Amino acid sequence: MHIHQIRSELKECLSAKRYRHTEGVAASSRELAARYGASPEKAELAGWVHDCAKEMTLDEMKALVREGGLAVDAPVLKSRALLHGPAGSVYARLHFGIDDAEILSAVFYHTTGKPDMSLLEKIVFLADYIEPSRDFPGVEELRALAEQDLDRALIAAYDSTIRHLAEQHVYIYDLTIAGRNYLILSQRHAQAE
Amino acid sequence: MHIHQIRSELKECLSAKRYRHTEGVAASSRELAARYGASPEKAELAGWVHDCAKEMTLDEMKALVREGGLAVDAPVLKSRALLHGPAGSVYARLHFGIDDAEILSAVFYHTTGKPDMSLLEKIVFLADYIEPSRDFPGVEELRALAEQDLDRALIAAYDSTIRHLAEQHVYIYDLTIAGRNYLILSQRHAQAE
Repeated sequence: MHIHQIRSELKECLSAKRYRHTEGVAASSRELAARYGASPEKAELAGWVHDCAKEMTLDEMKALVREGGLAVDAPVLKSRALLHGPAGSVYARLHFGIDDAEILSAVFYHTTGKPDMSLLEKIVFLADYIEPSRDFPGVEELRALAEQDLDRALIAAYDSTIRHLAEQHVYIYDLTIAGRNYLILSQRHAQAE
Repeated sequence: MHIHQIRSELKECLSAKRYRHTEGVAASSRELAARYGASPEKAELAGWVHDCAKEMTLDEMKALVREGGLAVDAPVLKSRALLHGPAGSVYARLHFGIDDAEILSAVFYHTTGKPDMSLLEKIVFLADYIEPSRDFPGVEELRALAEQDLDRALIAAYDSTIRHLAEQHVYIYDLTIAGRNYLILSQRHAQAE
């Protein structure tokens, strides 16, 4: 499906607020890609489709994940917040006809993160935090950091989510911690060299 | 070794501040044990020895862990903050002659936590946060919660540590997250029944 058609479908099916966010993530992904040497076209497309399943019900998300034959951890299957990435990657493939594995993986992991992310995965993950319509304490510092150091910005983004989840005393997905620790240990390793 | 002798050895080898903290953890462990139906004597003894290795060097801790034949995860072996529990459990066994596996396990896990902790493990873990000399934002709420609901107080204690580690952007041990998530999922399960 052509990107113009994808955009107009998203405008149709997403809430106005979610569409504005989506537009922002597409733009921020494109900018980060240009800055850090990924494909701006792929990054923008991943940004456009990253939340395509976000407003589905949990049952719709589960059906997509089943249809796509994806293996998903049990805690992820219980949570709309965690499952919309995997579900969105299936929707993007089956409905929008996107077959680029890098783009689909960036959609899959954009909320949870994971260890050893690709550049495109990192870009969409971070763009989701810093896109222009985002407004939370620390977002300006995070935007500034995103212009200087991709991995340090990612760690700060992970940590803003982890702090929030710890404040709420709700489940924290272990892959998120593993992804965050991976970056911290990589930085420590890089500093030691 | 008799508890009086253990106390005087600890007074000898620990800093004044650490000894005051130790005294507090022994007293708070005893109180929590009386409240929640564990052995007050075991809890107090575990409290007394919980930090016996805290002021050792990393090399001393590693030597103890080797001597005790303990299997310890790689990230724990690099961190005095994480290793003093395992090292302390060996010191308590070899030097203080404590052979009660429940007490030794409470010492081992008092900093990291883990999934499916025993009552005694939970008590020493929590006493370490709420003993009278502790002073951090939220400690009064945590003390009040500890009198009402052991598991909810534990979750709050875990979360105060996790928030702190996320603010500092430093490594978070996955066993700590697993221990915390285990309690959250247990509570959710209990509520659903």
